[in-house]
Amino acid sequence: MAGRREWTCETLVAGVREGDPRALARAISLVENGDPLAYELVSAVYAETGRAYSIGVTGPPGVGKSTLIGALVRHVRAGEQTVGVISVDPSSPFTQGALLGDRIRLSDHFLDEGVFIRSMGTRGHQGGLAETTLQALLVLDAAGKDLVFLETVGAGQSEVEVISVADTVLLVLMPGSGDSIQALKAGIMEIPDVIAVNKRDHPAAKTMVNEVRQVLALDRERQWRPPIVLTEAVRGEGVPELWEQVEAHRAFLESEGRLEDRRRRNLAGEVFAVASARAKTHLERAVADDPELRRLLDEVQRRELDPLSAVREIMEKVFRLDGADAR
Amino acid sequence: MAGRREWTCETLVAGVREGDPRALARAISLVENGDPLAYELVSAVYAETGRAYSIGVTGPPGVGKSTLIGALVRHVRAGEQTVGVISVDPSSPFTQGALLGDRIRLSDHFLDEGVFIRSMGTRGHQGGLAETTLQALLVLDAAGKDLVFLETVGAGQSEVEVISVADTVLLVLMPGSGDSIQALKAGIMEIPDVIAVNKRDHPAAKTMVNEVRQVLALDRERQWRPPIVLTEAVRGEGVPELWEQVEAHRAFLESEGRLEDRRRRNLAGEVFAVASARAKTHLERAVADDPELRRLLDEVQRRELDPLSAVREIMEKVFRLDGADAR
Repeated sequence: MAGRREWTCETLVAGVREGDPRALARAISLVENGDPLAYELVSAVYAETGRAYSIGVTGPPGVGKSTLIGALVRHVRAGEQTVGVISVDPSSPFTQGALLGDRIRLSDHFLDEGVFIRSMGTRGHQGGLAETTLQALLVLDAAGKDLVFLETVGAGQSEVEVISVADTVLLVLMPGSGDSIQALKAGIMEIPDVIAVNKRDHPAAKTMVNEVRQVLALDRERQWRPPIVLTEAVRGEGVPELWEQVEAHRAFLESEGRLEDRRRRNLAGEVFAVASARAKTHLERAVADDPELRRLLDEVQRRELDPLSAVREIMEKVFRLDGADAR
Repeated sequence: MAGRREWTCETLVAGVREGDPRALARAISLVENGDPLAYELVSAVYAETGRAYSIGVTGPPGVGKSTLIGALVRHVRAGEQTVGVISVDPSSPFTQGALLGDRIRLSDHFLDEGVFIRSMGTRGHQGGLAETTLQALLVLDAAGKDLVFLETVGAGQSEVEVISVADTVLLVLMPGSGDSIQALKAGIMEIPDVIAVNKRDHPAAKTMVNEVRQVLALDRERQWRPPIVLTEAVRGEGVPELWEQVEAHRAFLESEGRLEDRRRRNLAGEVFAVASARAKTHLERAVADDPELRRLLDEVQRRELDPLSAVREIMEKVFRLDGADAR
């Protein structure tokens, strides 16, 4: 960051509203660190948000999510829309600083004022990734970005929580993503809105598409039938078609007030996710700081106090919940 | 269950101690339903637990975890050890009642007094699966089972929490489990203690073993190098070899006090997981029951109150945590 400029809430709010990349970079860092200034900033601009359209991109590591986001960004930039990208995937090349490499070829976007890209960690953040993702999305929304991509690595429930705030959820798979197919089939992974099967040159790509199609066919109740698009992110192939499907989903949501309904549910879900994450962090810190609570764990380990009785005592002490509440 | 016998805490404790299958079935149902009697029971027998050795079995859906557990049970029963099996995998054939079918061929175990098999759900249980799994394990431990298998479907963090109480964690993969390999490689999935590559007749089985081996080779620091065993669960092939590796891991843990250390960490982790799950459930119920808290969510949706301010108000109201605590 050039110049260690001191930001106040006012200058930060003004900078974010103008879409100043330095203000945005600072704001996201504050969000990442759980700084009180980030809270004030989002609180100040919240009334102006809700204009950006957000796309959550999930999938197992290694399927090419980052490359695909890069290709989508290039595609939508041709249409003049401004873009923000937030990656909370610890295995993402965005996170690992590989961005400037040839492989991702996103470096041109760094020279483009219309694009803001940032990876984020949690660093033991109280509200967890759900909080940082939501706040970062709101910052980019307030900065006037038309589109915001949220990247996360999709495995289980907690990971999906991170992007459940998105308007459209895009699942990226590749040939060999058998575990994900099984998880979709078993109902363990939620059905996304759009599916990309990346690395379409792979001999097994068509088979993978058929497998996904069979899984989706099991669910006939769904109003929106998730489209499946074959892509080759590295060469940008299938990317316009993929974007068309994202826009089709957006058009579907924007009709009959569905987008508003979805955002209502999403925001309520996020508030719960953040509150739960905070309760958990609070709990861990309380036990770490309190010799009496640590003593309870010792008693459990010596088989003198059963685990649920220890939980009860901890709930009473930390959250002031009595036995009946905590049960 | 034959005869709607009324159980008291005393008769239940006595029945569990004797390993009476009806008492066990009743006890696990009580655990599953979060019944206060389950709490009293575990509390009464806790001092006697810690004798069973537990094996957590995880992996994507469809890889044959249940069949492999069935084969392992058959193998260890030949050696006279008594066994309990708890499945918390919603996609497991144990759960879906397919147990009596030919495919699993576990039906013989139902006639075997030395084996107790049970699948469990959460049904909105306050302490989540972490609580039901832990309590069920303690019941079977108190019943004198030598070995307890815990089956869960492994995808993300929250799923793994369920079996993190186990002494040995066995990950089951099959050819096509590319997503899991990538997740292991990216450090998103924790390295298990033993790995089985099931469906070894598949032409890609050897390739899968090599891929797993390469991932494991990246971690040179590890004292215990997780062995990889090729199995064909349906025909019981590779099962004695797999069990040998589980026992080797057990021997490793039992030397130099490692088992005690691991159990200490596991129990503390379980107490946290249960307490966090309860805090979350408490939060959801509090908001559902309180018009004032629901009003906060409406304000968030109308962009009048930002999400973090709503979280703060909820934390204050529900957990009586002030702003500084909740931040």
